Amino acid sequence: MGDARRYHALSSPFRMKRGGQLHGARVAYETWGTLDAARGNAVLILTGLSPSAHAAANLEDPTPGWWDDMIGPGKAFDTDRYFVICVNSLGSDKGSTCPASVDPATGEAYRLTFPELSLEDVANAAHEAVTGLGITELTCLVGCSMGGMSALAYMLLHPGSARTHLSVDTAPQAQPFAIAIRSLQREAIRLDPHWNEGRYDDERWPEHGMSIARKLGVITYRSAMEWNGRFARIRLDPDQREENEPFGFEFQVESYLEGHARRFNRQFDPNSYLYLSRASDWFDISEYGDGDVMRGLGRIQVERAMVIGVSTDILFPLEQQETIAKGLEAAGAKVEFVALDSPQGHDAFLVDIENYSRAIGGFLGSL
Amino acid sequence: MGDARRYHALSSPFRMKRGGQLHGARVAYETWGTLDAARGNAVLILTGLSPSAHAAANLEDPTPGWWDDMIGPGKAFDTDRYFVICVNSLGSDKGSTCPASVDPATGEAYRLTFPELSLEDVANAAHEAVTGLGITELTCLVGCSMGGMSALAYMLLHPGSARTHLSVDTAPQAQPFAIAIRSLQREAIRLDPHWNEGRYDDERWPEHGMSIARKLGVITYRSAMEWNGRFARIRLDPDQREENEPFGFEFQVESYLEGHARRFNRQFDPNSYLYLSRASDWFDISEYGDGDVMRGLGRIQVERAMVIGVSTDILFPLEQQETIAKGLEAAGAKVEFVALDSPQGHDAFLVDIENYSRAIGGFLGSL
Repeated sequence: MGDARRYHALSSPFRMKRGGQLHGARVAYETWGTLDAARGNAVLILTGLSPSAHAAANLEDPTPGWWDDMIGPGKAFDTDRYFVICVNSLGSDKGSTCPASVDPATGEAYRLTFPELSLEDVANAAHEAVTGLGITELTCLVGCSMGGMSALAYMLLHPGSARTHLSVDTAPQAQPFAIAIRSLQREAIRLDPHWNEGRYDDERWPEHGMSIARKLGVITYRSAMEWNGRFARIRLDPDQREENEPFGFEFQVESYLEGHARRFNRQFDPNSYLYLSRASDWFDISEYGDGDVMRGLGRIQVERAMVIGVSTDILFPLEQQETIAKGLEAAGAKVEFVALDSPQGHDAFLVDIENYSRAIGGFLGSL
Repeated sequence: MGDARRYHALSSPFRMKRGGQLHGARVAYETWGTLDAARGNAVLILTGLSPSAHAAANLEDPTPGWWDDMIGPGKAFDTDRYFVICVNSLGSDKGSTCPASVDPATGEAYRLTFPELSLEDVANAAHEAVTGLGITELTCLVGCSMGGMSALAYMLLHPGSARTHLSVDTAPQAQPFAIAIRSLQREAIRLDPHWNEGRYDDERWPEHGMSIARKLGVITYRSAMEWNGRFARIRLDPDQREENEPFGFEFQVESYLEGHARRFNRQFDPNSYLYLSRASDWFDISEYGDGDVMRGLGRIQVERAMVIGVSTDILFPLEQQETIAKGLEAAGAKVEFVALDSPQGHDAFLVDIENYSRAIGGFLGSL
């Protein structure tokens, strides 16, 4: 399997919002399409908590990316026209400096000595990568889920860095239901004896904690409505059941969750998960508006924006996207608010390609 | 503290739906008010997964019950008029025979040798307790949450046993979102090394698993809307935080969940929890209607019914109560469907006393 990642060395020290700093840190990114001579056709995508920078297949890495149906020639992100960049979040283990990276000061992995991470740091690291490519203004800054919060931070901290904004299934601040879910995911990892305050290894890996965290994630990323149609009360075939396992799985929905957990486990560093999860809880745009969300949004200057949300999203409820749309509009942007009824919940942007393609393709095509 | 529990010895053997049987089993119950000479003023309440039979204070046990504001002279369950009975579910550890009880055949606690439990067994045990009091027809059979499913089973298995029915925040079958949540709660307990396939003791108790299970319960029993108003993003005072605990609690909503988990832990037997949780997943009224929910409901004969649900309930969504209302109506009952907008989610029946009192008091007062 090829590797399409490029790396941008961050300023050293890279100073972080909550007081820490990193030395010799970097972020990984991938690109699609061609940057034009004026460096004026760049679109940056900031990701959710766990995806890598591999948003779509490219020459060096033809494996499908996490938004493969959206990015390419003639697709919503039309790479015949745009130069698309996706940055792996600082703190994520998909190539960027993260808690599993070696601290040059000690020669050992940071683990819990990694400095406190905020989405503002994620935004600043991505901004350095973009300016490192000689791009001073993005045609469009795109953020999905957690990446939507990082994108708000990016625009606040770097006025004039994006001409337009595309906000997908995200929020201007973490609300208590989402905090409760993420706190419980972190707790499941922390309570796993193999987590060992961050000092796990391949032999003793917090699989149980990560499994519970991932399943709780998947439950809140999808919707009850979708599952009624998809799983109903369908039982597993007897040969799929766990033999002699008391209270073992019996329904298809249980095996679906187990499959998700197995694919995730060992593919994502538990400490990275904890740092990025907490950063999501901390994010609150009202900090930039004297405690007021609308005032915080009011400080963001873009010409145009599209804000997309889904009525079945329980983690980032539609009201939160509506708030973003209103806030950006009040700040002077021309805003299009797209409320979808996709049954897939928060994950709709990864699944309901038809509706998201139409909205996003329409927006990017009109710029 | 007094104890108001009475006990009813179940038929021995007590044969269970899925093939097992219990010898010398019993259920605990409490009562309020006076049974009239004709034994015609009885109201039976079947509970959710964890409550005891102590629904309200009474002479022998003046401590507040779990539905204290609803039951008493002049209250919604007016004990000047009705004889109210609340039965602790078979399989629950609040006085009824359960996995923590001693198996007379071995002299040891059943633990996982307790037979497979279904809500039909819970219903049959409650029915034996009621007939044991000389009551052949209840004026009203009331079921809340899991107890609402037990109540449907009760009426199906014992035609003519209830003249009217009050269905509160429940469902005619477990749907995949609820199954996923409960499966994950069970998994958290099962993965706790202290669970030890059901052979825990006071020294090695699956506190971590029970804590995660309870917090996930509370998250799904309440609603995001309520928490936005109640907790917003309020931080804990520094002296309430956990010192030196990496990723320790920081927001009030986290400490609220922790308080719930602490109050629950060691108050409920983990194996009882597993058995009752799985019984909830198994319940499906369509089994009584050739695979069709409406046909299953169509076999229930009551004169009148009130079905109450809440728009913010994510565990037992309002559509499920609407289905019950339509099914009972199609079967010939006079049905009143009450859709409330209480912000408290599934738990509204325990919290929004004003609206539930008005509805339930109105219904019981009109019988």
